[in-house]
Amino acid sequence: MDYNHYKDISVDRDGPVLTICINRAKRRNTINSNLIEELIHVFGLVDQDDHIRVAILTAEPTAPAFCSGADISGGWDVLWKPDAEKEGPQAHRDDGGRASIAIYRCRKITISAVNGHAAGAGLTTFQLPFDIRLIWAGAKLTFPFVRRGIVPEATSSYLLPRLLGHSRANSLILTGETVTPDSPHIRDLYHQILPTRDAVYPAAKALADELAASTSQVSIAFAKGLLQHPGDSIEENHLLDSKAIKATAGSIDAAEGVKAFFEKRTPKYTGVLSNDLPHWVPWWRRLDIKHLKSKL
Amino acid sequence: MDYNHYKDISVDRDGPVLTICINRAKRRNTINSNLIEELIHVFGLVDQDDHIRVAILTAEPTAPAFCSGADISGGWDVLWKPDAEKEGPQAHRDDGGRASIAIYRCRKITISAVNGHAAGAGLTTFQLPFDIRLIWAGAKLTFPFVRRGIVPEATSSYLLPRLLGHSRANSLILTGETVTPDSPHIRDLYHQILPTRDAVYPAAKALADELAASTSQVSIAFAKGLLQHPGDSIEENHLLDSKAIKATAGSIDAAEGVKAFFEKRTPKYTGVLSNDLPHWVPWWRRLDIKHLKSKL
Amino acid sequence: MDYNHYKDISVDRDGPVLTICINRAKRRNTINSNLIEELIHVFGLVDQDDHIRVAILTAEPTAPAFCSGADISGGWDVLWKPDAEKEGPQAHRDDGGRASIAIYRCRKITISAVNGHAAGAGLTTFQLPFDIRLIWAGAKLTFPFVRRGIVPEATSSYLLPRLLGHSRANSLILTGETVTPDSPHIRDLYHQILPTRDAVYPAAKALADELAASTSQVSIAFAKGLLQHPGDSIEENHLLDSKAIKATAGSIDAAEGVKAFFEKRTPKYTGVLSNDLPHWVPWWRRLDIKHLKSKL
Repeated sequence: MDYNHYKDISVDRDGPVLTICINRAKRRNTINSNLIEELIHVFGLVDQDDHIRVAILTAEPTAPAFCSGADISGGWDVLWKPDAEKEGPQAHRDDGGRASIAIYRCRKITISAVNGHAAGAGLTTFQLPFDIRLIWAGAKLTFPFVRRGIVPEATSSYLLPRLLGHSRANSLILTGETVTPDSPHIRDLYHQILPTRDAVYPAAKALADELAASTSQVSIAFAKGLLQHPGDSIEENHLLDSKAIKATAGSIDAAEGVKAFFEKRTPKYTGVLSNDLPHWVPWWRRLDIKHLKSKL
Repeated sequence: MDYNHYKDISVDRDGPVLTICINRAKRRNTINSNLIEELIHVFGLVDQDDHIRVAILTAEPTAPAFCSGADISGGWDVLWKPDAEKEGPQAHRDDGGRASIAIYRCRKITISAVNGHAAGAGLTTFQLPFDIRLIWAGAKLTFPFVRRGIVPEATSSYLLPRLLGHSRANSLILTGETVTPDSPHIRDLYHQILPTRDAVYPAAKALADELAASTSQVSIAFAKGLLQHPGDSIEENHLLDSKAIKATAGSIDAAEGVKAFFEKRTPKYTGVLSNDLPHWVPWWRRLDIKHLKSKL
Repeated sequence: MDYNHYKDISVDRDGPVLTICINRAKRRNTINSNLIEELIHVFGLVDQDDHIRVAILTAEPTAPAFCSGADISGGWDVLWKPDAEKEGPQAHRDDGGRASIAIYRCRKITISAVNGHAAGAGLTTFQLPFDIRLIWAGAKLTFPFVRRGIVPEATSSYLLPRLLGHSRANSLILTGETVTPDSPHIRDLYHQILPTRDAVYPAAKALADELAASTSQVSIAFAKGLLQHPGDSIEENHLLDSKAIKATAGSIDAAEGVKAFFEKRTPKYTGVLSNDLPHWVPWWRRLDIKHLKSKL
């Protein structure tokens, strides 16, 4: 697949690892409509491309910020799609949320390598829907919404309490405080905290390389599905994971997993989503988030 | 509104910040029926009064405790309403829970400033439904229910796992252990831990003053609604926060938010709940918790 | 009841505390079908036996591991029941999950005393469904599923995010990393971390003895029920805990609880589940997880 036709992101593929770099350093890597569309597009490709096992989002470590949120130099208009506006009060779809969902739904491992300050969508869309986050210890982090007269966006009111619990989510969102990663309010959001901006991407890349070499693509897709859609009770989860185990334990990757374990070597997984994913995945019903055009 | 007719609490208003002080030091600030009714009443006023942006609950730092729970000097009778008792087994409504819900539903920022020991309802009703908790490092904290022959009350079995996760909620509730705020079982419940009893309220007041001066009343009400009622899936949340952004981004507070940001000054928010809250809030359906009188 | 007819576990009763020791040290305490059936059986007895208040699962501290997961020396066949296999794709029930649910449903206090390394089901079934976990600081811990070509099993995708939140559950499950208990990714899973393997069981036993002597059996059953099935909203929880308080506050244990409190002594609780549990428990509807035999 072609990952080279983007403008606000640059994409680099190294075998099974794709690195997506935000390319708007001159504007503090703020988010505009085109950047959103490019992110939705590239994470859709990552989801479909059997050759990719891990995707990393990062920025230039010399940029003024990892991402300073939406580009509000023209006011809140950045939030709108004029077409939707014409279609009535039910039509609006938050761009940050559209990108968050594209990232959250991607069935490969997703890593956010936060090598600079982050605010607003730079902390919501660009971090919360990812599986794993690495960060620079000096990053200044803010959920500024209640201090700007708007509301938490990009599905952050869903994702943040799930990730950290409501006590810390309340502290972060309802005060709009600025914290660094060592704050007890936010530190558990991060898989790893690195001492310098330059150290963040290499650590993320090393983790991605190791995961790409050691994990089964089908296992990851199932594991993400089970974590995101575990069922409403322990019993419902038991019925789901029982079926998932039955669906995977006879697979080519499971056979290789046992074999490599007893031969004390790294497994070589060949199963891919286009060919080896059982038919009943996804087992959950996705809510349709498109809007109908007004009939007027 | 008149905040001065209470008996078991004393109320002090300083501009947009209301301080509610428990006024039963002689009885270790234990909870009786009248204190519950006064709390329900005052948090109802805070919710409705456009002039209030933040409410703080605290106690005298010289009291024997912040709150030692229900006043059980007369046995468990403190838990009952004799009228409800006559109305049958479905009629009872736990007083601690009634107050917890009044606090939880309050659409302004709520802070509990815990400047002494706390047990039972002093740790459930008086802390868990608040947005933010500050505490004295030396406070002894206990959920004693399983050691008293009763059950976790005041909606604590709902709130505590949401705030901290089930691992720590189990440790606290199922052992009935006594901990201090530095315990890994409870420390993430607290926004800030202060070294002395005297330091707790001033820290809470400074935070309240800063938040009252910097946050939008409408944004806070929406953010609390989204955090408490985020939808059952990321997609449902996306539909909700998209609508919330559309509802607020054209508001007087959002315009002031952008303007103040570019003028590098503190915003001056004028939107109030009585006038500026869109009609579709709340978007969730509140379960009716009143009981019907027996028809006998 | 007779706790002495097992083969892969050995059981020791000391008054109200039952200790269950995994008895497969020669095979690294790995899990086979018989061990699963014995665990399901013994936790069923613990649930029913009024004389037992706390159950501890542990291993010999001299064993090579607390539990190294499923015994896959014969490949993934350990996961299957041949009968279920014949009955079609809906029939499989994961053995680890069957045991997890038996432990989770047990209405007494359950403690896992992890005095050695743990992987796979040794970290899922043998730890996550327990109320409380104590562990040796040097234990190596791994959720290896995505590195073996299979999926998270034994209801771990339900339990782990509930216990720790999704941020840390993702780190643990999606990377399949090996951590020790001091890792910020896992440390909050543990009530207590002990410096040596030999120290784990005595600490668990001391905690169990103290809880058995101080807590009400009926209160524990209710508290576990409320924590596991709290209702979908604060209001629904309020209706439940109000009913639970009404059901327990007039009980023999509640009367003893108040009396002991004022006499400043340890209470002596005599209420038992077979006699003193109100009829409306459980208030939730358990999903049937049995499978029907194929009609072919």
